Amino acid sequence: MSNDTATPGPILVINPNSNEVVTEGMARALDSYRMAGGPEIETMTLAEGPFGIESQVDSDSVILPLVRVVQSRLDASAFVIACYSDPGLDACRSVSSAPVYGIQDSGILTAMAHGEQVGVIAISDVSIARHMRTLRQMGVMDRITGERALNMSVHETAVGTETFAALERTGRALMGDGADVIVLGCAGMATHRAGLEEALGIPVVDPTQAAVAMALGRVLLG
Amino acid sequence: MSNDTATPGPILVINPNSNEVVTEGMARALDSYRMAGGPEIETMTLAEGPFGIESQVDSDSVILPLVRVVQSRLDASAFVIACYSDPGLDACRSVSSAPVYGIQDSGILTAMAHGEQVGVIAISDVSIARHMRTLRQMGVMDRITGERALNMSVHETAVGTETFAALERTGRALMGDGADVIVLGCAGMATHRAGLEEALGIPVVDPTQAAVAMALGRVLLG
Amino acid sequence: MSNDTATPGPILVINPNSNEVVTEGMARALDSYRMAGGPEIETMTLAEGPFGIESQVDSDSVILPLVRVVQSRLDASAFVIACYSDPGLDACRSVSSAPVYGIQDSGILTAMAHGEQVGVIAISDVSIARHMRTLRQMGVMDRITGERALNMSVHETAVGTETFAALERTGRALMGDGADVIVLGCAGMATHRAGLEEALGIPVVDPTQAAVAMALGRVLLG
Amino acid sequence: MSNDTATPGPILVINPNSNEVVTEGMARALDSYRMAGGPEIETMTLAEGPFGIESQVDSDSVILPLVRVVQSRLDASAFVIACYSDPGLDACRSVSSAPVYGIQDSGILTAMAHGEQVGVIAISDVSIARHMRTLRQMGVMDRITGERALNMSVHETAVGTETFAALERTGRALMGDGADVIVLGCAGMATHRAGLEEALGIPVVDPTQAAVAMALGRVLLG
Amino acid sequence: MSNDTATPGPILVINPNSNEVVTEGMARALDSYRMAGGPEIETMTLAEGPFGIESQVDSDSVILPLVRVVQSRLDASAFVIACYSDPGLDACRSVSSAPVYGIQDSGILTAMAHGEQVGVIAISDVSIARHMRTLRQMGVMDRITGERALNMSVHETAVGTETFAALERTGRALMGDGADVIVLGCAGMATHRAGLEEALGIPVVDPTQAAVAMALGRVLLG
Amino acid sequence: MSNDTATPGPILVINPNSNEVVTEGMARALDSYRMAGGPEIETMTLAEGPFGIESQVDSDSVILPLVRVVQSRLDASAFVIACYSDPGLDACRSVSSAPVYGIQDSGILTAMAHGEQVGVIAISDVSIARHMRTLRQMGVMDRITGERALNMSVHETAVGTETFAALERTGRALMGDGADVIVLGCAGMATHRAGLEEALGIPVVDPTQAAVAMALGRVLLG
Repeated sequence: MSNDTATPGPILVINPNSNEVVTEGMARALDSYRMAGGPEIETMTLAEGPFGIESQVDSDSVILPLVRVVQSRLDASAFVIACYSDPGLDACRSVSSAPVYGIQDSGILTAMAHGEQVGVIAISDVSIARHMRTLRQMGVMDRITGERALNMSVHETAVGTETFAALERTGRALMGDGADVIVLGCAGMATHRAGLEEALGIPVVDPTQAAVAMALGRVLLG
Repeated sequence: MSNDTATPGPILVINPNSNEVVTEGMARALDSYRMAGGPEIETMTLAEGPFGIESQVDSDSVILPLVRVVQSRLDASAFVIACYSDPGLDACRSVSSAPVYGIQDSGILTAMAHGEQVGVIAISDVSIARHMRTLRQMGVMDRITGERALNMSVHETAVGTETFAALERTGRALMGDGADVIVLGCAGMATHRAGLEEALGIPVVDPTQAAVAMALGRVLLG
Repeated sequence: MSNDTATPGPILVINPNSNEVVTEGMARALDSYRMAGGPEIETMTLAEGPFGIESQVDSDSVILPLVRVVQSRLDASAFVIACYSDPGLDACRSVSSAPVYGIQDSGILTAMAHGEQVGVIAISDVSIARHMRTLRQMGVMDRITGERALNMSVHETAVGTETFAALERTGRALMGDGADVIVLGCAGMATHRAGLEEALGIPVVDPTQAAVAMALGRVLLG
Repeated sequence: MSNDTATPGPILVINPNSNEVVTEGMARALDSYRMAGGPEIETMTLAEGPFGIESQVDSDSVILPLVRVVQSRLDASAFVIACYSDPGLDACRSVSSAPVYGIQDSGILTAMAHGEQVGVIAISDVSIARHMRTLRQMGVMDRITGERALNMSVHETAVGTETFAALERTGRALMGDGADVIVLGCAGMATHRAGLEEALGIPVVDPTQAAVAMALGRVLLG
Repeated sequence: MSNDTATPGPILVINPNSNEVVTEGMARALDSYRMAGGPEIETMTLAEGPFGIESQVDSDSVILPLVRVVQSRLDASAFVIACYSDPGLDACRSVSSAPVYGIQDSGILTAMAHGEQVGVIAISDVSIARHMRTLRQMGVMDRITGERALNMSVHETAVGTETFAALERTGRALMGDGADVIVLGCAGMATHRAGLEEALGIPVVDPTQAAVAMALGRVLLG
Repeated sequence: MSNDTATPGPILVINPNSNEVVTEGMARALDSYRMAGGPEIETMTLAEGPFGIESQVDSDSVILPLVRVVQSRLDASAFVIACYSDPGLDACRSVSSAPVYGIQDSGILTAMAHGEQVGVIAISDVSIARHMRTLRQMGVMDRITGERALNMSVHETAVGTETFAALERTGRALMGDGADVIVLGCAGMATHRAGLEEALGIPVVDPTQAAVAMALGRVLLG
């Protein structure tokens, strides 16, 4: 909204955990959205973040650090909070004139444009209730088939060799529940998106990609 | 999903009415999304369409012609049906392996990423009930403030000098109803988007731009 | 609403597929509603219709032909579109001063007067998502237990000897899901209604009968 | 469901208040549904009922007497409880193998087949909260525009000369709220239905007629 | 609201069935809420009630007797209707200036303060549809996991030795459905609350206790 | 749940802003719930809190300090977070074996036990969208009439002489919207509760009292 002249500032994608490996994977997964003449897509690791965000306290602990990043990066044309719990989304929005996107929010909305009934693959059972609160808050429960968990840690999903098989098995279970589009309910699974989509035969949405695409759609308007 | 090598095929934006002026305005409004290395954004006028889509029959009359376009353009990487009634969205989706976007669907989902309560500026009162059916079908009524109509023809909104004043007045009324994001409920009002956003001080979504951005987000993934 | 003198015009029940056998079955299933002094209940086959309506395109292909029938039959006191996808319901309503009934719409509303939780027996899995869109649009999801499919063609259900057993098995599965009233989710299964109701012990609604009854209730008021 | 041979038993329409004038008006309003070969439509006044049902206690006071009527009239093929509060609907259903209809329930469902957004004309403000409980219980709130009250007694609406003007004024207010179909929220206003429909230009539903039509649709099936 | 001087009148807990054993168990289960300086918590058995409330007619049969109790006990500072069907709740509220609590209503609302998704243990399958009507009327369906039945009589649950095992088995099934808080869907199971809570590891709500606590919270304000 | 012997630990009511005057008012407003033999009701001011919580960032800034309090006060039998934005409710619950109550959550649930349609008096317009997110998350929108704001600061409402008049005016406006029970949407207005209830003639709920009553109901069970 600000940078009406010349090129817009970067879309700043903030990984709120402090695991650089996750940030690097994220950066690669966003290469498709880097274009000549388009905005820079900058990824950063939140230094203050925990190594993984696996609990409500982990999630809430990054809100103020995220707010400080948003307040200090006036050059950014948009922000993406790249954790599926959407920590600090409301707070960051309240202090920014640039748009701020949560990856759960953008992932679900994008999935709703690609299917009737959305199924979500969560990392662990413990996160499902937290996600459900967000989905009720979004007011979209009639479009949600449900969530099913891999019950792996964020780190395991990023590096493990069993991850794809678990994703496929969980995706098929969600299809059995009625889902015709799948959202990867975590920021670290983008490398599996295309393969899983091919294996399942229905659209699979990586939420960080979805949020960056949403940001891109806005930023490119100038 | 198809074109995994080289550049993806064009995003085909179909104006289902036969008014070339509307198509031309649309084409200009999408310039922001044309990038070096990105997919072509091709606009076309549906020859079989009525001059304006102002009734349910007008809307339904273009479904089969739209299906034929989708079936014949296997080169396209995505389709956008650029009429706010989303005519033929389900039918086109059912015959296409490429994704198909309706502009009402994409416009509302995009607005939900930019505000809590969505207000829609409709062209005429008669279209509001038709839109409400779609919003109920989308399952997002808890996020909708309501629709208010300009009560102008599509053609008038495209050429008239009173259009901006009417948009601003209607937008302010929707804000009074509680809206904190506005969707332009018609394919022909994109030229007013940026101005209206500045005048109202809240995000304004052009639905054709929203749908093309949604398509771009998908097509760029390869 | 029109024919306030003398006898009202016929209730015109339009089978949008071109399968005369289906229309004949329908005509017989409506005999109960033909009464001395009551309106004629006329069934017709839509010449332009496909042999069976099994896809979204099939369904949308009959909208304009249905509109033309409605516009040409000014003598009719009411119209029933006798396909469970309710093709052209909104369009036909928009061009008619006489009431127009969709059989899904009437079937579900009638079921809601006979039970708390409605289960629907669909012909095939592929039609369930289409029906769910309509149910969300109707705003009645809290009263729907779900749909389960026979996975037979319309033609098979009309002639097959296995149909009743499949209906009973599917009905019982829906009762296990919580349904206490069943809707036959197709226009061609009326002959099984009474038998299925007796076998299951809960009300079973044939949607064409439901729509004609709804029409009768209105037309008899003059 | 019972009387499968010969003619079905009567549809018994029970006025739960003890005002015979109301019952007589009801009987006349149902003449349209009396047909050669069709079931008798019998109206009765509940001797134990209060002169008018204007409070929750009035409404609840007739439940057991209604249950006794239903239990004693095994000859009836269907029952209609002709008070807009639907007193005893669940209890009567639980003791009857014949179907039992409430006029609010049937009136709202019938209205939903004739318009998108239902407005209800209540007799008095005090009854609106009671009706809203029923509408929430029915699970149809997304289709309800709201209720507006005449603030007259049941008796006044039946005999007063100001009634039609008040109905029209209230109906127009509901149309201003968005209603495109009106339900008369009381058993005593049927004589005004046709006139009000003509004055307003949208369908007007008398709930007793709606319930009897619903019963007729079922009983005629044998 | 009335007794602003001195001590407030008693909270009157009415057991609408005539089984004194149930009332006595209730009285004991409320001992925790009897405090020096606090209001008396008086339990009474409704003489006119059936021995157990197991059907809709049983439930409706106690409404007028309950209304008479409420009208005659002007000294009470609050009333609790201690049957899970909440018989006469609306009627009693309409005749009382003191607050009236239904135990289903209070039990569910209290459970919503202690968990995200509420599961209910019903006595019998036949009561589930009745409860579901109330839950839809309360407008809280998005927070309800579902109900599962013990299929025992009220009397059996009060005296039987198998009750606890059945409660635990049913509670675990509800947890498998997603419940993270349990409501005992009957007035006679309070003795098992603490044990079941310990066995399941999630909060268990006795609805009579919940209603009395709700009453206490109001009455203590003076 | 822990302290099963002897007296339970205190109910700890935490004022998350650092304004001692607000805490003192709160402490007085809870006197009614202090009883011989009952748990201590201890109020504390969060030293780390801002002087008033008037923004999303203010609200989120107290989450971690609240978590630390909850983790350090193992003696407490229950916690109440006494800010209407319910900051840290989910985080505190996740680290505590004792129950944790948010005053918005408890206030709304308590209001639902005392009326059909809940109206909320907010301090300022800016907080309404934040509250609405919570209400959507609670899944209770069908019971909410709406919120209207006083547009005063928390401090002003605590000390100002105009506060009561503003509360009454706003309460009447909410009643005009349909509310039959009012929630004070702030922690600092308890002194006006009884007066406002008398002036409006409908129940008025102070949310801190509601949360403490909810806690008391649980803690007294041992």
